[in-house]
Amino acid sequence: MQAEILSIGTELLLGQIVDTNAAFLARELASLGIDLYRKAVVGDNLERATAAIREACQRAQVVLITGGLGPTLDDVTREAIAQAVGEELVFHEDLAEELRRFFAQRGRPMNELNLRQACLPASASPLPNRVGTAPGIWLEKEGCLIVAMPGVPAEMEVMWREQVRPRLEQRQEAVIHSRLLRLMGIGESNVGAAIRDLFEASTNPTLATLVSQGEVQIRLTAKASNRQEAEALIAPVEAEIRQRLGEYILGVDEETLEVLVGRWLKELGWKLAVAESCTGGLLGHRITEVPGSSEYFQGGCVAYANEVKRDWLGVPEEVLQGYGAVSEPTARAMAEGARHRFGADVAVAITGIAGPSGGTPEKPVGLVYIAVADPKGTVCSDHRFPGTRSQIKARAVQMALYHLHQRLTLHRRERGLC
Amino acid sequence: MQAEILSIGTELLLGQIVDTNAAFLARELASLGIDLYRKAVVGDNLERATAAIREACQRAQVVLITGGLGPTLDDVTREAIAQAVGEELVFHEDLAEELRRFFAQRGRPMNELNLRQACLPASASPLPNRVGTAPGIWLEKEGCLIVAMPGVPAEMEVMWREQVRPRLEQRQEAVIHSRLLRLMGIGESNVGAAIRDLFEASTNPTLATLVSQGEVQIRLTAKASNRQEAEALIAPVEAEIRQRLGEYILGVDEETLEVLVGRWLKELGWKLAVAESCTGGLLGHRITEVPGSSEYFQGGCVAYANEVKRDWLGVPEEVLQGYGAVSEPTARAMAEGARHRFGADVAVAITGIAGPSGGTPEKPVGLVYIAVADPKGTVCSDHRFPGTRSQIKARAVQMALYHLHQRLTLHRRERGLC
Repeated sequence: MQAEILSIGTELLLGQIVDTNAAFLARELASLGIDLYRKAVVGDNLERATAAIREACQRAQVVLITGGLGPTLDDVTREAIAQAVGEELVFHEDLAEELRRFFAQRGRPMNELNLRQACLPASASPLPNRVGTAPGIWLEKEGCLIVAMPGVPAEMEVMWREQVRPRLEQRQEAVIHSRLLRLMGIGESNVGAAIRDLFEASTNPTLATLVSQGEVQIRLTAKASNRQEAEALIAPVEAEIRQRLGEYILGVDEETLEVLVGRWLKELGWKLAVAESCTGGLLGHRITEVPGSSEYFQGGCVAYANEVKRDWLGVPEEVLQGYGAVSEPTARAMAEGARHRFGADVAVAITGIAGPSGGTPEKPVGLVYIAVADPKGTVCSDHRFPGTRSQIKARAVQMALYHLHQRLTLHRRERGLC
Repeated sequence: MQAEILSIGTELLLGQIVDTNAAFLARELASLGIDLYRKAVVGDNLERATAAIREACQRAQVVLITGGLGPTLDDVTREAIAQAVGEELVFHEDLAEELRRFFAQRGRPMNELNLRQACLPASASPLPNRVGTAPGIWLEKEGCLIVAMPGVPAEMEVMWREQVRPRLEQRQEAVIHSRLLRLMGIGESNVGAAIRDLFEASTNPTLATLVSQGEVQIRLTAKASNRQEAEALIAPVEAEIRQRLGEYILGVDEETLEVLVGRWLKELGWKLAVAESCTGGLLGHRITEVPGSSEYFQGGCVAYANEVKRDWLGVPEEVLQGYGAVSEPTARAMAEGARHRFGADVAVAITGIAGPSGGTPEKPVGLVYIAVADPKGTVCSDHRFPGTRSQIKARAVQMALYHLHQRLTLHRRERGLC
């Protein structure tokens, strides 16, 4: 079964919102084993929406549409579907009654525009909307299933989970299962070269590499009649990749660096503290994205001003004066100060120049020092990250988590934990 | 001039990443006055990518492609373009030389796969990639311009700004200019009701409302022969909206809350400090996304553990014991402690339960206290935010910035600054 996703909304074409609905539905289709070959976006324009629906129906057996089901005149999805399949719109008195109830319950006035939402293409059945006014559309014609859902993500997701997914599940025989290997410390082309023969040989699972936030990722995707079979197809290929690139593979699937770091801290029984200058709190934010991080995360100091580095973290005034706030001695002193003053076992410090101004020939924008202090001492490294202010901050945090991860791995190895 | 955007990458069809490139390019096209009628996504599949390029060229005069320019075998964009326009791939020795230099400078080994990146369709010219290895592609054939850029957002954006946008600008006669009004403290449907007549009457500019991160946004979009004319079309409609909803409009366009807060702090000559518990550093991160924030941001304390709240911020042990870490007295003491100990004029504190665990019937997940301490005293408010751990953190930070903004506005008013 092949599917396409069509998002309808001018705001998507103006780039003012990102199409998270399509990404959500793409993941869902993958987990159902339904091949997705295309996603498309058109604006609130009847003619172009109709054409896009017609084309998708020619290629795919399932067309999932989001958006354009609202009450206002720029909501064209109902009419576009009707035109694409050559049907009239029909008014449903029972849907109108539900709309009247919805507004009455909330004590809000209903206007006649809302009655547009009670119209469906002749052969369509409505999909109830438990959290909003727009009913969805389910229409099967000439071998193609068209499903239309609201564009508001919260309404779309409820309708998908309760109405659409269960019905599609019943029709599916195969599942697609995917496994993501997360690597750091190696570039994409070297990963590609190391597993080139596997790439060329593999059809099930298929292989792909991607780069995201300083990680290289290898994705293995298998298609089989159930999850166990898919996993069995992936296992030998993953084993071969691990043979060749194992030292660079940090985690799999949802195991981001912050998840792994949290796991190793718990294993070691350690507490963590952070000291951040140029990243402004982003390292602490990422660490605390992990549920249960309060078990090992003591807290941190965002030491933006030099007085804070001195008074809160104990960086000596002569270090700040002699080497500058962005320097290896300052990074080391920040990490050691945070470790000591927060009563932590390990502390990570970041100081650098995020830009766009503040750089000099000796200390350019993007220069970042990262220090990790633990019971064995303090290590420090310097980096030059490219990109915008936001990107430099994000890359510095990713690298800091990587250094912390490597340092924790050393301690785990010594204790025989890995 | 009509454009289409085509994103190439199986990871987008699996929903593993969200297509931010397409949203970025959509905004850019809008600002250039180039109509965007379609966005599409296909996977790393030569046949389907070729078909999608061919179709887009039949409809549009500009086809912007991102992704699939990497060195590995699943990167099919170069070949798909060549096939779509009926050309061969040609090896460019000068591009190969640049690749060798890129790797030599970084002391990294280059392998033969990278040489794939030195191949272009016969009539194409390369677009230099200043921050990565993959050159872009610029190809004009039979009335259609095809531009291919890397899928890594940082590389794509630099190439767009430096190479592609300037050339497209020269070809454009009309501009689309858009103005975004950012509102807080009012719901979308009340905004819609207040300006319904403007909505119905307006064709140039058009109006749209969106909701994003706790803000309601009104977008006014005008098309004219130059920017000044477009602004003149927007001005009277904006004035009318301000007449009706002015008290809720905080900023316009890129004026996010953190930008405005920074501006008012500079105006008042004040220093800011933060104390964060459940948000883990996200408030500091957002404040420091603004270039030049070191002028007014002293720093902050991420007080995750209770000892940190006590020892670093001076929250009395009896407050922590008597009311709990998530309580109004704790939030107030955190804000006052941060203000005092960081030597700041104003401090913001956040303490709450981000979940998914840790909630109780009295203190459920999503309960967050936000306090602001300034020379006039301390104000505190409590909130119940819905959503996931990440969403609760993000909403708490947005609300904290809003409270800080409102407090600063009070002081500015007293000084006659607004």
